[in-house]
Amino acid sequence: MEYSRNDLLSLRNFYRDQLLNNTIPFWFPRSVDTEFGGFLLMRDADGSLLDDDKAVWIQGRATWLLSTLFNTVERRTEWLQWSKNGLDFLDRYCFDSDGQMFFHVTRDGKPIRKRRYFFSETFYVIASAAYGKASGDQRAVSSSQKVFTDCIAYATGQKKLQPKFTSTRPSKGIGVPMIMINTAQELRRSAGDPRCDDLIDRWIREIERDFVKDDIRCVMEQVSPDGSIIDHIDGRTLNPGHAIEGAWFILQEAQYRNNDKHLVELGCRMLDYMWERGWDAEQGGIFYFRDVYGKPVQEYWQDMKFWWPHNETIIATLLAYLMTGDQKYARWHQMVHEYAYQRFHDKVHGEWFGYLHRDGSVAQTAKGNLFKGPFHLPRQEFYCWMMLDTHLKKNSE
Amino acid sequence: MEYSRNDLLSLRNFYRDQLLNNTIPFWFPRSVDTEFGGFLLMRDADGSLLDDDKAVWIQGRATWLLSTLFNTVERRTEWLQWSKNGLDFLDRYCFDSDGQMFFHVTRDGKPIRKRRYFFSETFYVIASAAYGKASGDQRAVSSSQKVFTDCIAYATGQKKLQPKFTSTRPSKGIGVPMIMINTAQELRRSAGDPRCDDLIDRWIREIERDFVKDDIRCVMEQVSPDGSIIDHIDGRTLNPGHAIEGAWFILQEAQYRNNDKHLVELGCRMLDYMWERGWDAEQGGIFYFRDVYGKPVQEYWQDMKFWWPHNETIIATLLAYLMTGDQKYARWHQMVHEYAYQRFHDKVHGEWFGYLHRDGSVAQTAKGNLFKGPFHLPRQEFYCWMMLDTHLKKNSE
Repeated sequence: MEYSRNDLLSLRNFYRDQLLNNTIPFWFPRSVDTEFGGFLLMRDADGSLLDDDKAVWIQGRATWLLSTLFNTVERRTEWLQWSKNGLDFLDRYCFDSDGQMFFHVTRDGKPIRKRRYFFSETFYVIASAAYGKASGDQRAVSSSQKVFTDCIAYATGQKKLQPKFTSTRPSKGIGVPMIMINTAQELRRSAGDPRCDDLIDRWIREIERDFVKDDIRCVMEQVSPDGSIIDHIDGRTLNPGHAIEGAWFILQEAQYRNNDKHLVELGCRMLDYMWERGWDAEQGGIFYFRDVYGKPVQEYWQDMKFWWPHNETIIATLLAYLMTGDQKYARWHQMVHEYAYQRFHDKVHGEWFGYLHRDGSVAQTAKGNLFKGPFHLPRQEFYCWMMLDTHLKKNSE
Repeated sequence: MEYSRNDLLSLRNFYRDQLLNNTIPFWFPRSVDTEFGGFLLMRDADGSLLDDDKAVWIQGRATWLLSTLFNTVERRTEWLQWSKNGLDFLDRYCFDSDGQMFFHVTRDGKPIRKRRYFFSETFYVIASAAYGKASGDQRAVSSSQKVFTDCIAYATGQKKLQPKFTSTRPSKGIGVPMIMINTAQELRRSAGDPRCDDLIDRWIREIERDFVKDDIRCVMEQVSPDGSIIDHIDGRTLNPGHAIEGAWFILQEAQYRNNDKHLVELGCRMLDYMWERGWDAEQGGIFYFRDVYGKPVQEYWQDMKFWWPHNETIIATLLAYLMTGDQKYARWHQMVHEYAYQRFHDKVHGEWFGYLHRDGSVAQTAKGNLFKGPFHLPRQEFYCWMMLDTHLKKNSE
C-alpha cells in the first residue's frame, strides 16, 4: 500500500493533535511539583497519584520533552519553566557524592536506590542539553557535556560500574551503543559537541558488526564481546521493540548524513528482521521478548504487549517509508499504528495504558510508574509530526 | 462441603501416584549430570534441555527432595546416590571464597552470578541436613548446621549483605522469617538442632506482630521495621501465594506442638485473608501480586497464574481442613486442586507448566529454568500424600 499526500497530512494532524490535546495535557501541569521541584509522575489511568516517589530516568525524560517542545513546537513560557523545575531537581538531588546518579528518590529528593548502569546519566545529558538550548543557560550545556564524558567512560569501560555478573561468561548488550547513539544525536542537536559524529560512527559500526546477524535475519540483544551468540537462555533472548528503536536511531543518522545509503540499508535491515520476529501475526502487536531459536524465554511475561515497543515501531516504520518509499513500510506502519491507538490509547482519560496481555486486554492501568512516564509516547507523536511536516513541506506541490 | 474418608483415600492415592509416576520420572534420572555432578534441570515441556547452566537454589532443592524421599518414602539407592551427586556439586562449586553462595553457575561449576540475599544458603541447609540423615554422613549434618548459623547471622543483621537500597526508607520482607521458619523445621526434622524451637517461635511472633494486619484482613509482603505499612508502590504489593505458604509453615508448626491452638488460629487467619485477596473469582487460580489498596502493581504481569502459589495453596487448604474440619477449607482445596491439575499439569509429558496467563492459557512452556525445578510441585505431592496418610491411619476405623 501507499500513503497518499492526504493520508500523510491527516497523519501529521493526528499526531500533532494527540500530542498537544491528549498526551501532554494528561501530564502537565498537574505533575509539576511546585513544592519540592521535579515532577510527580506515578499516576493511575485517571491521573490520580499512585506514589509521590520520583524515578530519575523519568524526571530527566520529562525535562527533555518540555525543553524540546519549547525548542521546536512553540516558545511557551510554561514549558520552559516546568523544564527548569525538572532540571533543578535533577541537579540538586539526583547525583551521588561519587558523581553517579541515583535511580529512584523520594519526593523531597532523598535517595532510595542507585543501580549498576548509567541510564539516569544519559537522560540527564539530553535533558540538560535541551534545556541549555531552550534557556541559553551555558551552565546547563556544560553540565550536559560533562556528564556525557562520564557516559563515554562508562560505555567504553574506562570507568567501571559494579558488575552484576562474574567474568566467567562476558557479554555486552545492544542497549549501550544504542542509548549512546541517541544521546549523542540529541546532544549534537541541542548543543553541538565535536565528539558526536565519530562516536556515533563507532557505535553504529559496533552494532552492525556484533549484533546484526544476517545469516539468521536477527538483531541480538546480547552477545559475547566478539559478537558471537551466547547459547544460554539470557543470551538467546531478543527484544524486538528495542532493536527496532535502534533501527530508527540509525535511520535518523542516515537522514542527518544526507541519506547515507549504507545507513538507510542497515536501519531497514534491522527493522525488517525484527518486525518478522516481533510482530504477533495471530493477535497483533509487538511481542516483548522472543528466543532467537524459538525456545521458551526465561521471562514468563514475554508475550505481553508493552506500550513503548509500539511507539518505537510507529516511528521506525514511518521513517523507513518516507526515506525509501517501500510500500511494505506503509503497510506495517498502518498495522502497528492502528493496533496501538485502538488498544493502548485510553479513550476516557487520555494517554496510553502501558501493559496489555497478549490478547490486547489491559493488564495494568498505571499511566506512570518507575519505568513509564511522559517519554516514548509523546516522543513518538512529536517525532512523527515533525517528520511528516518536514516531508510534506519538502514535497509540496 | 466435606471430604469423605473415601475422598481422602483417593486424594492420597492421587498425590502419591502423581509424585512417583509423573513428577519424579519427568526429572530423574535424565537430569542427573554424571559428568560434572549436580543436575541439568533447565528443561522444556518435553524434557529437552534448554540450558546446561545450574541454578544454585534448584540444585539444593533437588538434593533435598531426593534425600527426603529416601528418608520417608522408600530407601531407594538411586535416590540417595543422586542426592549425593547434588550435594557434592554444591559443596565443590557453589560457595564463594567469602563463604557466601553463588546463585547461578555453569555446568562445570564456574560462577556466573552471586546475589544480595541468602536463599541459596537456606536451600543448602535443608539439602545437607536431609542428606546427612539419609546417609548417616555426619559431615553433611555439621555443614548444614554451620551454614544455618550463617543464615541466622544474615537474618538478624549480624552479618550484612550488600544492600540493594539506601537507608532512606528501611523495610523488611516476610520472606526472611518465612524461609527461616521452614529451614529450621527441616533442619530439626532431619538432624535436630537445639536452636530451632526458640528461633521458630521468634520468627512466628515477628510475622504475627509486623506482617499480619487484622484491621484490613491482610498479610503484608513488606513493612517498615516497626511493622507499619509503607504506602508506596513496592510497599503496597502483596504476594498472596507466598503468604499462604507462610500460613502452612505455621500450621505445620502448630501440628508439631500438639495442635497449639494459637498457631492453628494464626495459620488459618493468614490463609483466610490471602485467599480472599488472592483467588481470582472470575477466572480461577491465585493471582501473583495484588495491591493492598487495590491500586495498580508495578509488576505488569501481576495477574498471571504461577505454578508454585497453587502448590502452596493446595497444601495450606488441605492442612487447614484436616486440622480444623472447617468445610470452607475442603471447598477451597477442591477449587485450587481442580484448577491446578486441569491447567498446569502437562497431560502429554508430565509435570506442570510454570506460567499461565490470567485466563489459564500457557504463557511459557519451560518446566525448568533459573527459578523452577523439582521443588514446589513434588513437595506438594509428597507433603499432601504424607499428611493424608497420617490422618487416615490416625482416624482408621
